Amino acid sequence: MIFLGGLAEIGKNMFLLECEEDIIVVDCGVAFPQEEQLGIDLVLPDISYLRERKDRIRAIFVTHGHEDHIGALPYLLPDLLPVPLYATPLTLGLITAKLEEAGLLSRADLRPFDPDAHPAIAAGAFTVEPFRVTHSIPDAVGFGMTTPAGLIVHSSDFKLDPTPIDGRLTDEAKLEEFRQRGVRLLISDCVHVEATGHTPSERVIGETYDRVFAAAEGRIFVATFASLIARVQQVIDTAAAYGRKVATLGRSLENNVRIAQELGYLTDAEGVLIESREAAQLPDEQVVYVVTGAQGEPMAALSRIANGDHRDVAIGAGDTVIVSATPIPGNETAVFRVINQLFRAGAEVIYGARALVHVSGHASRDELRRMLDLTRPRHVLPFHGEHRHMALYADLALDAGIPSESITFAEVGDVIEITPDKVAVTDRVGAGYVYVDGVTVGAVGDVVIRDRRALARDGILMVIVSVDRDTGQIVAGPEIATRGFVYLKEAGELIDATKAHVREVLGAYTNGHQTDDWGYLSRQIRDATATYLFRETRRRPMILPMVMEV
Amino acid sequence: MIFLGGLAEIGKNMFLLECEEDIIVVDCGVAFPQEEQLGIDLVLPDISYLRERKDRIRAIFVTHGHEDHIGALPYLLPDLLPVPLYATPLTLGLITAKLEEAGLLSRADLRPFDPDAHPAIAAGAFTVEPFRVTHSIPDAVGFGMTTPAGLIVHSSDFKLDPTPIDGRLTDEAKLEEFRQRGVRLLISDCVHVEATGHTPSERVIGETYDRVFAAAEGRIFVATFASLIARVQQVIDTAAAYGRKVATLGRSLENNVRIAQELGYLTDAEGVLIESREAAQLPDEQVVYVVTGAQGEPMAALSRIANGDHRDVAIGAGDTVIVSATPIPGNETAVFRVINQLFRAGAEVIYGARALVHVSGHASRDELRRMLDLTRPRHVLPFHGEHRHMALYADLALDAGIPSESITFAEVGDVIEITPDKVAVTDRVGAGYVYVDGVTVGAVGDVVIRDRRALARDGILMVIVSVDRDTGQIVAGPEIATRGFVYLKEAGELIDATKAHVREVLGAYTNGHQTDDWGYLSRQIRDATATYLFRETRRRPMILPMVMEV
Repeated sequence: MIFLGGLAEIGKNMFLLECEEDIIVVDCGVAFPQEEQLGIDLVLPDISYLRERKDRIRAIFVTHGHEDHIGALPYLLPDLLPVPLYATPLTLGLITAKLEEAGLLSRADLRPFDPDAHPAIAAGAFTVEPFRVTHSIPDAVGFGMTTPAGLIVHSSDFKLDPTPIDGRLTDEAKLEEFRQRGVRLLISDCVHVEATGHTPSERVIGETYDRVFAAAEGRIFVATFASLIARVQQVIDTAAAYGRKVATLGRSLENNVRIAQELGYLTDAEGVLIESREAAQLPDEQVVYVVTGAQGEPMAALSRIANGDHRDVAIGAGDTVIVSATPIPGNETAVFRVINQLFRAGAEVIYGARALVHVSGHASRDELRRMLDLTRPRHVLPFHGEHRHMALYADLALDAGIPSESITFAEVGDVIEITPDKVAVTDRVGAGYVYVDGVTVGAVGDVVIRDRRALARDGILMVIVSVDRDTGQIVAGPEIATRGFVYLKEAGELIDATKAHVREVLGAYTNGHQTDDWGYLSRQIRDATATYLFRETRRRPMILPMVMEV
Repeated sequence: MIFLGGLAEIGKNMFLLECEEDIIVVDCGVAFPQEEQLGIDLVLPDISYLRERKDRIRAIFVTHGHEDHIGALPYLLPDLLPVPLYATPLTLGLITAKLEEAGLLSRADLRPFDPDAHPAIAAGAFTVEPFRVTHSIPDAVGFGMTTPAGLIVHSSDFKLDPTPIDGRLTDEAKLEEFRQRGVRLLISDCVHVEATGHTPSERVIGETYDRVFAAAEGRIFVATFASLIARVQQVIDTAAAYGRKVATLGRSLENNVRIAQELGYLTDAEGVLIESREAAQLPDEQVVYVVTGAQGEPMAALSRIANGDHRDVAIGAGDTVIVSATPIPGNETAVFRVINQLFRAGAEVIYGARALVHVSGHASRDELRRMLDLTRPRHVLPFHGEHRHMALYADLALDAGIPSESITFAEVGDVIEITPDKVAVTDRVGAGYVYVDGVTVGAVGDVVIRDRRALARDGILMVIVSVDRDTGQIVAGPEIATRGFVYLKEAGELIDATKAHVREVLGAYTNGHQTDDWGYLSRQIRDATATYLFRETRRRPMILPMVMEV
């Protein structure tokens, strides 16, 4: 088993099982770039290992339709084709939309399964049995994977919601069946292990909606995740009860709602869903907008509305906004900025500090324990968490009677050997980050990111001189151009002094040195400039010397 | 009254009261740069307004020794001198250390007061009466400020801790006395208004320390804020009880502990405080380190220890780390990264998700309500919060019977007119950010920050051509240099194609155009390059054309 993603950071879930000539792949997700991955749009798993063994890949199995599980398919599937991809109907619907946009749909081999029919899908040396789990998107599954080394149960992202909005419960009977057959390894979600007890049911959010809808006199805005179909269902149901219509704002949300509705995962018996241009014609007290941007994403609907630059909707006094999400670590500043702006615009804002507006899609400690009790695995591998989550999960597993030598932590790129005797990390493969920036995949690597970090900190300063290729004499310059270091119009003195200093250093160099070693000359310019500027400003802009030969 | 800082963002507290020819200033803090203020070290209040009225400033009053209240003094005090600065002994001790380092101590006029003696300090048209408040640093005060328009009570940062570690309670008797005299305006802390009930006493942290110290077998590390003297006191007391010695790691912490000890705000009856080099000689089970870096600051002791690059201390299995702080919004990612690293190194890590390791220094809702009841002001002005905090505080004030027209929100730069008839924002003064970057104050403005943001996103690409000043013909180039855009070694094709494209555009231009309008030529180069690169990569690096005349 090889982890290409899913550990030690949020997102980018992907791993593979390999047995002699057969490989199966589970999920193919993206990560959203971290703060210091400047300018990057998306982070993909590095699938070099798979590319080299493409002919052995028997199938791809996908657990659910979240971006961190399906988002890399438009980028990576072409490298893996032809290969069948198995998922539930809603998950396949979301994948279909992605592949269609990427012009890949006709080449893909998409195969739906119904977990309630308890299929067993053969793929080389493996047999994969999906089982339903509750999560923050409908139609999510885990996999029981029978291998020559025994049965591996992969919980995927789950919670044990006793009252899910769509009524489809986690298939505990199947988990008990797995236990009876003997579970060699449980790969368990662990990302929410810090929470004690039981994660509340998604249904409790309906009570907050009900209370807010009852009190609101003007328009209501509900911001949530585009994939949280159950939340949209609850808005639809509450709106119907209070005589309001519902319109969506934000492309990803509109797409997901359309797909979910077409496939029967979203019901609108009263016909409250309308187009946003229709909503604009209705009196305020009859309107609900479901909007994207609950994580403070600057280009999403909620941010645009908060900043007063949304094309169709202006917010103000009388409006109520429910920010129905919890900020993901790293997004707090952006989320609170949007909330502040909404308050400043005069809206009533209901957010996490004021009401129960969000519940996690992941299992808390009691549910993780129950998954252990249901499956009673010989070995466990905590999955999808950071190192602190793995450590706390290990405590939980110890409590449940799993000996510490049967608890394996893995990092991205680790090879986990699973034999009848042991489960252990035995090797590593190359499996780092691949960056997507604009339309270029992979062209932006760590060197470029490091440069961006330096540029962001202190800017850049270029020093250009023209030298006569025959005499080695400077015929023009030094000229200086700078960005992100000092404001040129106000720093004329510093720039002039720097030029003079460079000229002096170069004078000492070129007098009598007639040379064509422009590399050496460049280094002289760089060092002299850097030393001078650090002395004057205590800062270290990137120095880029250019010698033009004329 | 003019706000130069303290609202709408955390930090940078500073405001002034003005009455005809008299001005008094309250606090002089810094803000720590926000994520998008790239490369900036500190943010100062803009005191242009004060500089122009320097001769009217009668005094500076400082509430307590936190950076967001005193941190700008080394930068701004020289512009305000000569002026007396009033504060409690510990606050003055911390200010003294700063001014000494900046070489300003001999010029400063520092005047201590003892709030328990109930002084009334006259300063022009104003009389200022400090009163003790509990907060997360000892010797903090608020001010009752008698003005020609009535009595203004400034709570400053406070909580109502019934059992503070130093035993010094908030002076509620003084607040009641103010109420009897009639409070025209309460300026109230509001930053913790999202928390219901009462903020726990600092003392409860001692229980966690006791439990962890009782169980720990190896070394104990406690990471906290350098100014949280009460927390250090609790570490000292718990260490004494368990036969351990305490050493500090981190310069700011060492300084603060030394000052607090010299001034009697930190007691070490058993002599457990030792130097870190002594601690290194002791058996693990006798050592506690108090360290800086609980907010994940990359250069602080905790980060260095977690990453294995601290000069003196290596962490590993058997060690216990208490991260005795809550991440400030925006710092979560950095803090969790450090916690993950500590777990990875094998340490036992006690942090917020596992135990009560931190309590706020600010009043929760019930305490804010009590401050309103104690002072019964005619008007209130929520202070030190973001807009969402002000909005929630307004709800609380309404509940307490303050009519909505008596609740004033202010932003940085607002002029608040306080007359016997009204309290209202009536004007604005220039009061933005002043950035400190390296040793330069103010040279980095918004233009530079905007450039850094663009550089961070997509990098920069320079196009240099040399042209003959007489003929206008291109004699060398175009040469291209780039940083933070693509990795040059792997993008040779793209760069060559760009050069060819620029050459083509320039060829069309210079043929028959013999000109010396290098500005026009530069714009041609920039536009052609930008358009070409966007078409090829969907990215927009900053384009910097340079025309060298030879």
